[in-house]
Amino acid sequence: MRHALDITREADFSGWYQAVVSQADMAEESGVRGCMVIRPWGYGIWERIQRVLDDEIKATGHDNCYFPLFIPLSYFAKEADHVEGFAKEMAVVTHHRLTAKDGTLVVDPEAKLEEPLVVRPTSETVIGEAMSRWVQSWRDLPLKLNQWANVVRWEMRTRMFLRTSEFLWQEGHTAHADKDDAMVETLKILELYRSFAEEVLAMPVIAGEKPENERFPGAVSTFSIEAMMQDGKALQAGTSHYLGTGFAEAADIRYQDQSGQQTLCHTTSWGVSTRLIGGVIMTHGDDDGLRVPPRIAPHQIVILPMLRDKEGDADLISYCEKLRMGLTDQSAFREPIRVLLDSKPGKVAQKRWDWVRKGAPIIVEVGPRDMEGGNVSVLRRDRLWREDGKPDFDIQTRDDFLFCAAGTLEAIQKNLFEQAKKRRDDNIRRDIADFDALTAHYADGNDKPGWVELAWSRPTGADLDAVVEKLKSLKLTIRNTPMDAGKPEKPCFFTGADSVETIYVGRSY
Amino acid sequence: MRHALDITREADFSGWYQAVVSQADMAEESGVRGCMVIRPWGYGIWERIQRVLDDEIKATGHDNCYFPLFIPLSYFAKEADHVEGFAKEMAVVTHHRLTAKDGTLVVDPEAKLEEPLVVRPTSETVIGEAMSRWVQSWRDLPLKLNQWANVVRWEMRTRMFLRTSEFLWQEGHTAHADKDDAMVETLKILELYRSFAEEVLAMPVIAGEKPENERFPGAVSTFSIEAMMQDGKALQAGTSHYLGTGFAEAADIRYQDQSGQQTLCHTTSWGVSTRLIGGVIMTHGDDDGLRVPPRIAPHQIVILPMLRDKEGDADLISYCEKLRMGLTDQSAFREPIRVLLDSKPGKVAQKRWDWVRKGAPIIVEVGPRDMEGGNVSVLRRDRLWREDGKPDFDIQTRDDFLFCAAGTLEAIQKNLFEQAKKRRDDNIRRDIADFDALTAHYADGNDKPGWVELAWSRPTGADLDAVVEKLKSLKLTIRNTPMDAGKPEKPCFFTGADSVETIYVGRSY
Repeated sequence: MRHALDITREADFSGWYQAVVSQADMAEESGVRGCMVIRPWGYGIWERIQRVLDDEIKATGHDNCYFPLFIPLSYFAKEADHVEGFAKEMAVVTHHRLTAKDGTLVVDPEAKLEEPLVVRPTSETVIGEAMSRWVQSWRDLPLKLNQWANVVRWEMRTRMFLRTSEFLWQEGHTAHADKDDAMVETLKILELYRSFAEEVLAMPVIAGEKPENERFPGAVSTFSIEAMMQDGKALQAGTSHYLGTGFAEAADIRYQDQSGQQTLCHTTSWGVSTRLIGGVIMTHGDDDGLRVPPRIAPHQIVILPMLRDKEGDADLISYCEKLRMGLTDQSAFREPIRVLLDSKPGKVAQKRWDWVRKGAPIIVEVGPRDMEGGNVSVLRRDRLWREDGKPDFDIQTRDDFLFCAAGTLEAIQKNLFEQAKKRRDDNIRRDIADFDALTAHYADGNDKPGWVELAWSRPTGADLDAVVEKLKSLKLTIRNTPMDAGKPEKPCFFTGADSVETIYVGRSY
Repeated sequence: MRHALDITREADFSGWYQAVVSQADMAEESGVRGCMVIRPWGYGIWERIQRVLDDEIKATGHDNCYFPLFIPLSYFAKEADHVEGFAKEMAVVTHHRLTAKDGTLVVDPEAKLEEPLVVRPTSETVIGEAMSRWVQSWRDLPLKLNQWANVVRWEMRTRMFLRTSEFLWQEGHTAHADKDDAMVETLKILELYRSFAEEVLAMPVIAGEKPENERFPGAVSTFSIEAMMQDGKALQAGTSHYLGTGFAEAADIRYQDQSGQQTLCHTTSWGVSTRLIGGVIMTHGDDDGLRVPPRIAPHQIVILPMLRDKEGDADLISYCEKLRMGLTDQSAFREPIRVLLDSKPGKVAQKRWDWVRKGAPIIVEVGPRDMEGGNVSVLRRDRLWREDGKPDFDIQTRDDFLFCAAGTLEAIQKNLFEQAKKRRDDNIRRDIADFDALTAHYADGNDKPGWVELAWSRPTGADLDAVVEKLKSLKLTIRNTPMDAGKPEKPCFFTGADSVETIYVGRSY
């Protein structure tokens, strides 16, 4: 069967990913290494992610604010430990002026900054510094801040959305009176991320705790949501950290408690980024392009009139415009349905395939004959093909379509989630008995080995290092310990000791 | 009479401005010169501005996208003419790594970039470059893009919101088939800005064309909205430029027209920034702090229960919670009313004055006696004081207040606009006959001379230069030529020639 993309997932997953990014008008290279131009369809998806997630972050009592792009170098020096574990690959501003020299523009050597400025790789340090000013008494706690911003980490090997030098993200930073309150926050956000990923992005995830060796440097505990991509690799899609009092100590975030004592705060931080878009592509894309879950689709329904540069065109457009208004008046997922009437010049078949590649959830085509019969031709992106290899158009009366549109969008959202969940669950092995079997499972012949669930005794220190090294030989990492799994009956896969929890191992992005 | 701020507008307008920025929790210095931390209340106002304006920008057919923070130096060199008129004060990234040396972090001299990267002062060049790829045929036109982003212009003298090295803005960039279509766009956006400023920010503005000497470098025509601050100075609050074909030529934005010919596009650009927040402060603030117009207030109504750490507190909070829900169920300005129930610990009088300084439009206090009587005590921020110098609380039944809340918010919005408009109109002189009178009007004794309207023959070249120099001696600039003013009857104030239009002159930020 012919498909709308030239490359299939099966033949070349990585090439397929690039093809979707490019042909679904998501993003393109910018000319600056590792920085991308996010195109309208890709950015529209990010805006939907932002708006829905931001509402949820606000509803749980967080305030947005904005901190500067530049951080003085000395702030990092203060937290050398923190920086140690961090990539030191950061963009550094050293000059503040250009000047003309021999007819071209050059950096003005006279305009060297006294102190270099680092383009923020995260705002941890500056937000910590502000918290130390803003928190005085127990009355100021909890202090729950969030920021939407661009950040820069100089990456050597980049891939659109998944690893770029500049990316967009949301970073939450909170300060609390004690450990209990900070842990409640950390886990509340983990759950917020889980439900957001599953209900909004239709992307099934495992929410759980990272092992010691995968913690954010300086964190006491790090939690993540892990999604499985269609090639079986894991994508860490969001993290939530309980930072204990270490960061508060470094930034001097203290409060006077009710007895008058100066006390260190317990802090948390958490974030998701434009990486989520990469996750959406590799979760829902197929060989015809992207399939965007309706809740984050900039246009949920695209109407394509079959214009012929003839007299009847005006009637057809007016018929489609009525359809558009009828849809806009309705709600799906408690928001007005987002509809585009695409009457730009161009052949309808070409426009149809453009929207298929972009992954608009529903495409409605309306020709003169449809109009005469009071009908519309409806194509669902989540079940594009008939068995005979033709696009699965469903001719419905306009009224029927209007009546069912919201329900259809909800059904598509559910279908995408269920397809992804089934695929994920089918690709988790629970029956691997020993390291030889693990090695065999991840041998070169198996190109989609997925994840393996193992019993785990939670070794630390040198014992943990030994496990990590062993896994590394198979290019595996421990993804996380799921929150809801009980104590396994089997002994620890690695140490043979009594196991206390379950872990997932897999390859990852 | 005592006021909530220590400094009055009359005594020291500039000191007063800083006091509002600080005491209304709008922003603070960040430790990086010229970069501010935008605090939650200030950022909440920016988010409201963004959301309302973004909806309008999208409704007029523009797509948002995102371009990289960094621009290679060579892109600027290409447009040396454009850069000439531009400040060359830009932040330049020259290195991409930090390294530890003698126990501290320093810029790694080994990690020098081959080509320096400029932190975007505007995205004109990169967006132009993308347009040249994205526009191929007449079918791709018009191409209407918008971006919300942070930009950096290294400023020597900075003032919060008004002139900062980093600021947040929206930049629109569009490409059209011909001049007519591009001019329609330029003026449509000017009108969008005008109505946004007046209806949403309650800030009266003059929409008009800038004189030749005030044009954006390279633009064919530049239009602006100009607002008058309470000290009589002008604030340019938004600009819209028709760029002709010059930028298209530099960036090679061409299309194949319907006859198959390669043709240059006509382009436009337009923007507003966090500067608008400075405008809101200097338009609506008073000696008690900020007054936020309801349409952009993060919380339109703040409910303060008078808690006493006693048994009755729970009932009081439940009474207030019912009030909050009753308000949230209603709409003002076609959006759900935004209400905060502020039950944080602290004395109600202190919290009241905090909210007065922040400028929440309506403050509702509820004590045990109010609750018993089914009442609430209502304070409108736009008419805070009774004649006897006491806060003008109005005791209403809870039902009456609920019934009237949306209307009250609309009345406050209107009142703020009318107060500002009257002040603006009262501070425009139309009767200044000659340059001596102009000099006298702007003499040192007159500390709020406002603007002067003058007849204008639109001189160009050396004649215009002479006028500009003369005005400069009084620290004046031409603000703009209003769109709606006819041809004046008087001859040109400067040249004595037949006048063709009207101009406003004034001092400015």
